[in-house]
Amino acid sequence: MEKSINLPKLNAVKYSLNLLKSNKVIGLGSGSTIEMLIEEISKMLRIENLDVSFIPASTQTYFKLINLGIKPASLDTIDEIDITFDGADEVDERKYVLKGRGGALFREKILSYFSKKYIIIVDDSKYSKKIGEKSSVAIEVLPYAINPVFKKIQKICKKAEIRYGGRIKDGPIITDNGNYIIDAYFGEIDDPLELSNQINSICGVIENGIFYQNITKIIVGYEKEVKVY
Amino acid sequence: MEKSINLPKLNAVKYSLNLLKSNKVIGLGSGSTIEMLIEEISKMLRIENLDVSFIPASTQTYFKLINLGIKPASLDTIDEIDITFDGADEVDERKYVLKGRGGALFREKILSYFSKKYIIIVDDSKYSKKIGEKSSVAIEVLPYAINPVFKKIQKICKKAEIRYGGRIKDGPIITDNGNYIIDAYFGEIDDPLELSNQINSICGVIENGIFYQNITKIIVGYEKEVKVY
Repeated sequence: MEKSINLPKLNAVKYSLNLLKSNKVIGLGSGSTIEMLIEEISKMLRIENLDVSFIPASTQTYFKLINLGIKPASLDTIDEIDITFDGADEVDERKYVLKGRGGALFREKILSYFSKKYIIIVDDSKYSKKIGEKSSVAIEVLPYAINPVFKKIQKICKKAEIRYGGRIKDGPIITDNGNYIIDAYFGEIDDPLELSNQINSICGVIENGIFYQNITKIIVGYEKEVKVY
Repeated sequence: MEKSINLPKLNAVKYSLNLLKSNKVIGLGSGSTIEMLIEEISKMLRIENLDVSFIPASTQTYFKLINLGIKPASLDTIDEIDITFDGADEVDERKYVLKGRGGALFREKILSYFSKKYIIIVDDSKYSKKIGEKSSVAIEVLPYAINPVFKKIQKICKKAEIRYGGRIKDGPIITDNGNYIIDAYFGEIDDPLELSNQINSICGVIENGIFYQNITKIIVGYEKEVKVY
């Protein structure tokens, strides 16, 4: 399903490519932006011979690497990542980030945690004054506890739903880790750190899509320029 | 594999049975103590007709109920539990508890979280001045992140190992949730709450076996008596 080129996104991706070169171990998050980045990396590797390892956050990213002939590496043999690139659902001027539309938030957060640098790449449509304005918070939940956790989440947010597979899969989608996702809409989030702690303190929650740690740079692409926060 | 009766444990189990009766929804943790409790419950149900639901924390407990003709209930239809009973690896006079020898710590913690009362049943051999003296802290970890998480854990504890299946299963054991367990020995734990937060802040950790919330009572069985903390 080829879409017309998103120029702001492509600008941000191409800018990121320059940050990549001096690193040995590179984490790759998940989503369409990362797929676009991998395509650019693939082109680059045809010209330059770089000695780098790529660690994918998701099965999607893993297959994208494989399909373009790039051998994926794994955290099983690597303890620390030099730099990780990732997309986002929403970013704000305070450097808070919402992730999880692709359901890969837990492994993405693991990559961010074990990376010296963590770079977010987005187009300008993802930029908000405060995260939460446009997107829900994705929450990965152990299926065993989905019912009582869902009811707890409903009480603290404006609207919550368990993410379903629609025409692709009957019933709830299952993450790469075997869990469910709850999408909880809170509106603009004044204190993302506090909300993240509140959500994660509900036992049965595995992780949530509010990212606030280790974010080195946010690269926002526009039609004719790139801004770095 | 029938062992000779552990009288202190049986005393604690029989004492607990009295606490059970006035409740409608009962959570059952996991391990040999809970299996013993279920046997006593089964005997009781043959005499008294109680209208109660039992929610098991583990597949072991689920099968034990099934095998004794007791129909298990599920968190899928129940939002709050009146009382949960659970065993422990180690308890201390400060009411801190170590759990996880059976690898069921995450679901046990979920039951404790959604229970109005949470009762720990142990024999006197599990009682310490400070938890950590006798037992390791069990830490459930996403397989994706096992290598870097293990190295982080090694740095903060005295001795750590990934739990293996031995003669039962090649390689690491897999929990009911599809994850690995790291057993980390810290010695006596001065501040269990702080240690628990420190462990859970390592991204890739799902949950750890330090229990400190919602513990209503600890019932310690001795040869000739029962003490309640």
